[in-house]
Amino acid sequence: MERTLIAGLTEHVGKTVSISGWVEVRRDHGKLIFLDIRDRSGVVQAVVMQKEVDAFGTAETLRPQFVVSVEGGVRERPENMQKEGEANGTIEMSLTKIEVLAAAHELPFDMDAELNLDTYLDYLPLALRTQSGRDIFAIQATATEAFRTALRELDFTEFQSPTLTGGDAEGGASAFKVDYYHDKPAFLATSPQFYKQIMVGVYERAFSTPKVFRGEKHATTRHLSEYSSLDFEMGFITDHTDVMAVLEKTIRHMVAQVVERHSDALARCEAEPPRVPSAPFPVLKLAEAQEIIEKEFGGSAVGEPDLEPEHERQICEWALREKESDFIFITHYPVSKRPFYTYEDENDPGFTKSFDLIFRGLEITTGGQRIHDYDMLVGKIKERNLNPEAFSFYLQAFKFGMPPHGGAATGLERFTARMLGLPNIKEATLFPRDMTRVDTRLAQDDGRPAQDGALDR
Amino acid sequence: MERTLIAGLTEHVGKTVSISGWVEVRRDHGKLIFLDIRDRSGVVQAVVMQKEVDAFGTAETLRPQFVVSVEGGVRERPENMQKEGEANGTIEMSLTKIEVLAAAHELPFDMDAELNLDTYLDYLPLALRTQSGRDIFAIQATATEAFRTALRELDFTEFQSPTLTGGDAEGGASAFKVDYYHDKPAFLATSPQFYKQIMVGVYERAFSTPKVFRGEKHATTRHLSEYSSLDFEMGFITDHTDVMAVLEKTIRHMVAQVVERHSDALARCEAEPPRVPSAPFPVLKLAEAQEIIEKEFGGSAVGEPDLEPEHERQICEWALREKESDFIFITHYPVSKRPFYTYEDENDPGFTKSFDLIFRGLEITTGGQRIHDYDMLVGKIKERNLNPEAFSFYLQAFKFGMPPHGGAATGLERFTARMLGLPNIKEATLFPRDMTRVDTRLAQDDGRPAQDGALDR
Repeated sequence: MERTLIAGLTEHVGKTVSISGWVEVRRDHGKLIFLDIRDRSGVVQAVVMQKEVDAFGTAETLRPQFVVSVEGGVRERPENMQKEGEANGTIEMSLTKIEVLAAAHELPFDMDAELNLDTYLDYLPLALRTQSGRDIFAIQATATEAFRTALRELDFTEFQSPTLTGGDAEGGASAFKVDYYHDKPAFLATSPQFYKQIMVGVYERAFSTPKVFRGEKHATTRHLSEYSSLDFEMGFITDHTDVMAVLEKTIRHMVAQVVERHSDALARCEAEPPRVPSAPFPVLKLAEAQEIIEKEFGGSAVGEPDLEPEHERQICEWALREKESDFIFITHYPVSKRPFYTYEDENDPGFTKSFDLIFRGLEITTGGQRIHDYDMLVGKIKERNLNPEAFSFYLQAFKFGMPPHGGAATGLERFTARMLGLPNIKEATLFPRDMTRVDTRLAQDDGRPAQDGALDR
Repeated sequence: MERTLIAGLTEHVGKTVSISGWVEVRRDHGKLIFLDIRDRSGVVQAVVMQKEVDAFGTAETLRPQFVVSVEGGVRERPENMQKEGEANGTIEMSLTKIEVLAAAHELPFDMDAELNLDTYLDYLPLALRTQSGRDIFAIQATATEAFRTALRELDFTEFQSPTLTGGDAEGGASAFKVDYYHDKPAFLATSPQFYKQIMVGVYERAFSTPKVFRGEKHATTRHLSEYSSLDFEMGFITDHTDVMAVLEKTIRHMVAQVVERHSDALARCEAEPPRVPSAPFPVLKLAEAQEIIEKEFGGSAVGEPDLEPEHERQICEWALREKESDFIFITHYPVSKRPFYTYEDENDPGFTKSFDLIFRGLEITTGGQRIHDYDMLVGKIKERNLNPEAFSFYLQAFKFGMPPHGGAATGLERFTARMLGLPNIKEATLFPRDMTRVDTRLAQDDGRPAQDGALDR
């Protein structure tokens, strides 16, 4: 019999159908066994009566996460058992046939238990099947696609930014080293920055959603070794505010799509939809933000080259209260705190046409206008005691005519975490990698590294 | 004055507008200078007359790839200069003002010259701006998005597959090693295989478009160190033919979208749209294909465990002639040639429920049904003298209930190359990495490795 999806069962009341899925719960009531069965579309309650001898016998062996294909009639539930407002809350299936497609070992925890983070990560292949696991990464999928859709609407072309790069160009320690061919090293990209600028020369407007990698020795709730970067770059801008306008459009579309398509999941995660002002997102220069922080929250912020995490939370508290916005732009970070290619504001020397977007207390985006003049860019590289020859490939884009341009990079996991109010970025990362873990913990009890991962096909 | 896009100029005949873009060509005709100016939307011819003293003086300094912002009137071309059927072929702009946004050094080659591959790759940031560079990767962007759209329509959920993995699980030499933390190694994913199977447990149907990495010492026209893999995996299948049906739908949508949206580019690349049969794609078992190859083309193929590149070309020649199809499925590769998780056909022992999709002589997709039974899978791992403990993370998905499932992986660059008839896969790869090159050539003349790449932001 052809499979029916569980979400469509209400259209089959009075008929016999086949469904397939995972057993979520078995409840024994003597001559009756109740099963909750889930597939990708939803959950339904199924009843097995003792008189269905074969099915009943099989039902007695079922445990959570058994995979089954079952047949039976779809019927209205007895009136006192109906749960109005719940999907399939007024129907149930009465099973006549149960086929076990795969058995499951006993689970290490209940699927609705609150897990501590290490247990959650140790059992990720199972833990992702919980309602919250499925909710978080369905929302992430929607946000990713909304990012692309918004930019495609604005004439941006997608491109595949490379992961392997020829050098850790700034000489920092943040790029992971790869054993490449002939005993030569390559490095994992810490950002698609150079490539998206090159692509401005090709398509004017380009975006990419690559994985990027940071080898800093961070062990915080906001850092990852590997994350998804939502990057765009655009040519023929007047200044950084053109980039901010495109970013704002994109972020608004991402929020709207998540809210529209996942209101149930947001409610289950007890996450309020973000406050998005009808006016443009509030914008403050770094120095202005620091003055507000000192005035409203005390402490010392003015004159610092960046906002501390605590300051990011405070300025968001202010923005929500005063501007009814969960988002706020901070602009004009000092030249010293931004990469060499950042454009200095001729009207505000020492400060850059750069911005961060802060969302519910966490910086999720960095962006700005970039230098497009070849000679100026080479000069900035030299000022930082870097060797322009190390940048020869990248510099071609500027040698051969580059328009005024800028762009932004948003951390997908950070956006997801703030949408859902998840305190640790790892909860918003599908398979998080950090200093201590790549799937399994890196140091086993016996001190040997754990072995596991993907394989050749 | 606000910028007008070049593609919209025909709506502004008789008016004065501003456009911005790159100078493609300058042609001096004494008292007249002609410029072709390109932006992301198209090209237009502009005329500068000597009497426009300032503009003419600037125009005399322009060279290809200068970035300009210009103003002038839009007008019909003189009748004998009109090129019907060409975009903007009947209009031109008469410039009154030219602002140079960025100068360009003299180009190392004409933008319409045929470049040899090494020159093309050495000058990629410039070479990608050629018409064919822009065409190839615009088509690739469309194909990528069409892959996602087709699967989303079929209820697949996108996920972010990890790049860093804990081990080269099969013990082959094909995974690049990364210096991770604490002197421990990590490895670059050679495929998202394990993760997409895990995601079947979560969403039943999942897809991802990750970068994957192969460290084999190949120097061919079909291998890359880094490529984009279009992966999907689906649960509750009957056998591999369910996977083939979804793949075929996806590929048809990718072809249709490229043909619909890039007919001009295909024509410029002298690429015929692929022949797609109205009947399903032809399907042959490997053994059947080998018999046909021997019978039609001679040589020795029967009994070999795989098709040689030459055989792939021959069977496609046959499929085009006999089945009017540029695509053909080959199924039932021997167990020995497929990974341990491949499902053996109970009706054809020794052979697997696996398939390749061959497109115009090149394998672009590998897929099949996977083993879903935990004990059987552990047995297969042991049979290959691998240690099941090395797979403990992955095996959780099976321990806790996995439906019959399967999936496929398509090489985006291979698909692109065959769509456009490009002989070398590197021409269909935006920033190709191989044994000799990561942007710049790995060994410079002086023997030192080249330094260059992405940087921290």
